[in-house]
Amino acid sequence: MIQDAIAAIGALNTETMDRCQLRLDNLTKPLNSLHGLEYLARKMAGITGNARPRSLKKSIVLMAADHGVAVRDPSQPPPFSTARRMENICRGCAAINTFAGHVAANLVPVDMGIAADMAGMPQLRQAKLAYGTKDITGGPAMTREQAVAAIETGIRIAREEITAGTQVIGLGEIGVANAIASTAVIACYCGRPACEKPDAARQRKIDLVETALSVNQPDPGDSIEVLARVGGFEIGALAGVILGAAAYRAAVVLDGLPTAAAALLAVKLAPAAKEYLIGSHFAPEPGHKAALERIGVPAYLHLDLQLGEGTGAVLGMSLINAGLHVLNDMKTFGEAEVAIAQDGPGASKQSKHVRD
Amino acid sequence: MIQDAIAAIGALNTETMDRCQLRLDNLTKPLNSLHGLEYLARKMAGITGNARPRSLKKSIVLMAADHGVAVRDPSQPPPFSTARRMENICRGCAAINTFAGHVAANLVPVDMGIAADMAGMPQLRQAKLAYGTKDITGGPAMTREQAVAAIETGIRIAREEITAGTQVIGLGEIGVANAIASTAVIACYCGRPACEKPDAARQRKIDLVETALSVNQPDPGDSIEVLARVGGFEIGALAGVILGAAAYRAAVVLDGLPTAAAALLAVKLAPAAKEYLIGSHFAPEPGHKAALERIGVPAYLHLDLQLGEGTGAVLGMSLINAGLHVLNDMKTFGEAEVAIAQDGPGASKQSKHVRD
Repeated sequence: MIQDAIAAIGALNTETMDRCQLRLDNLTKPLNSLHGLEYLARKMAGITGNARPRSLKKSIVLMAADHGVAVRDPSQPPPFSTARRMENICRGCAAINTFAGHVAANLVPVDMGIAADMAGMPQLRQAKLAYGTKDITGGPAMTREQAVAAIETGIRIAREEITAGTQVIGLGEIGVANAIASTAVIACYCGRPACEKPDAARQRKIDLVETALSVNQPDPGDSIEVLARVGGFEIGALAGVILGAAAYRAAVVLDGLPTAAAALLAVKLAPAAKEYLIGSHFAPEPGHKAALERIGVPAYLHLDLQLGEGTGAVLGMSLINAGLHVLNDMKTFGEAEVAIAQDGPGASKQSKHVRD
Repeated sequence: MIQDAIAAIGALNTETMDRCQLRLDNLTKPLNSLHGLEYLARKMAGITGNARPRSLKKSIVLMAADHGVAVRDPSQPPPFSTARRMENICRGCAAINTFAGHVAANLVPVDMGIAADMAGMPQLRQAKLAYGTKDITGGPAMTREQAVAAIETGIRIAREEITAGTQVIGLGEIGVANAIASTAVIACYCGRPACEKPDAARQRKIDLVETALSVNQPDPGDSIEVLARVGGFEIGALAGVILGAAAYRAAVVLDGLPTAAAALLAVKLAPAAKEYLIGSHFAPEPGHKAALERIGVPAYLHLDLQLGEGTGAVLGMSLINAGLHVLNDMKTFGEAEVAIAQDGPGASKQSKHVRD
């Protein structure tokens, strides 16, 4: 199933991107003067195969799981809090409920491995692989079979959402201690985490990551092994969502550290998946920026968000919306009946990349 | 009039900020985990004097003027294009029309010194001080009287908008070659512009800035003189809008380089005005970041926007809206009936600034 998804990933539609670019270049503004927003509009044209996409149907897929390593980190909240946060989300009271509503995104919470029985929440999709991973400072997080199953679950859920009409999937996660697992995954590809003057809590996390890598010795050439040894169920599922989205042609909007770890795994498995990734915010953890740079995906927002849940992904969706507003609602020189001879694209072409 | 506005600038309301913070700390999330959005919500509480501000009434004040120095820079579009862009705005066809509509902001275009007669545009406020500034590479841009008049116009327009109910003012501008004047103003306070490997067009602008500073020798201790010698009519008017907004208690959202130059001038005239400033995007020009850092105002968005008009300010307004959605639409632990004893603020307090 993973190989089928990887094989199904196609290139973006350059014909619709070119036609989108033509309209962007004819809008009544200097060429490329709305740089990042124009990039997002063009990207959506390439993914959707529509030169002028308008309002896109959105989902937030929120993968939740616990991590055995949490018991080694006294700065973590009690392990039960992944379950409590999910209950709060299913009650509609969390940040992501407010955020998802703001962009009219369908919220899809999934139990990939919460360390509690999650009864009485019909909207929560059940895909629990275990009651949390094993402690990665003592051995692998999960079996290779569980790693494959996590990725497959993500692919399946992405396919279901896309079949139901979704064109943009935002990634969200909750999982106590998943910053440790995410940092370990990222370190396999980007080197050990650097941190200027870490405080005690941060140093404790760095030490746990170092121990996990020494004990497990994951081989960066085998992404599924990396996931199995130092990753997490929600990280694997998010990597699967990326593969599924790329295979069935939806954009994927990243969020914080665990989504960047998942993106690294997915792009290692399928380099072509990179073109379907959209960044959102810069998380405060140094590994986040390193991972995005390694993949080659720009991010946009400096807000020091540390919540997860997909909150940053929703803000990224708002930027996509802004790009599509530019594409659709601004007028071209022709539409605006502006005298092109005097002040049109020819004149403004001179000032490309140079502010007036 | 300028002194009256400066004298009227008060401190933010710490009592409403504290009550706002109390609600933010009781929302069902780890403390401070939505950092930048929480900062914006708290800031709006302090400016409005309301612990729980909701949807705020917004205006974009768009100051337009031409610059005599434009004739020295062959990379500039024809000088008539400030007029043409304003016509396009008054026709409703420009980017800022689309953007302002998106946040329901009232658009207030003002002719501070466009080098053309702007007839037949009833929505354009007439405040023309001259048909563009004089060439700053040969002498001062304007007289001291004109500089004072530009600032006073900005104060007056801010007061009018605030009297009509506006609580957040976004700054916008158009003006061919105003990047040169803005860079010269910023250089007076932040040192000469540094630019890695400038291309020919960029080097030309740097040379013009250097010449303007050498010829005019502005004294950084006298902001009005800096404005008169190397500034612009729209830059002065924007500085006035900042003073007026701070005096009559509205937030001011910055945009690109000319708004940062205006903010420097305003904060030099009235340091207390700084608390009313909200950053939006990082403009590509190095002087922009230097000015914001000098003032001490954070910005949030990396999109390489170079359009002006207030487009970046509108995106900043969207972030303010996101902060107010967090404040108003998320539930507190009490509201969510979450078992505070097990998973409440006490537990999450441990993880302040440390991601789970």
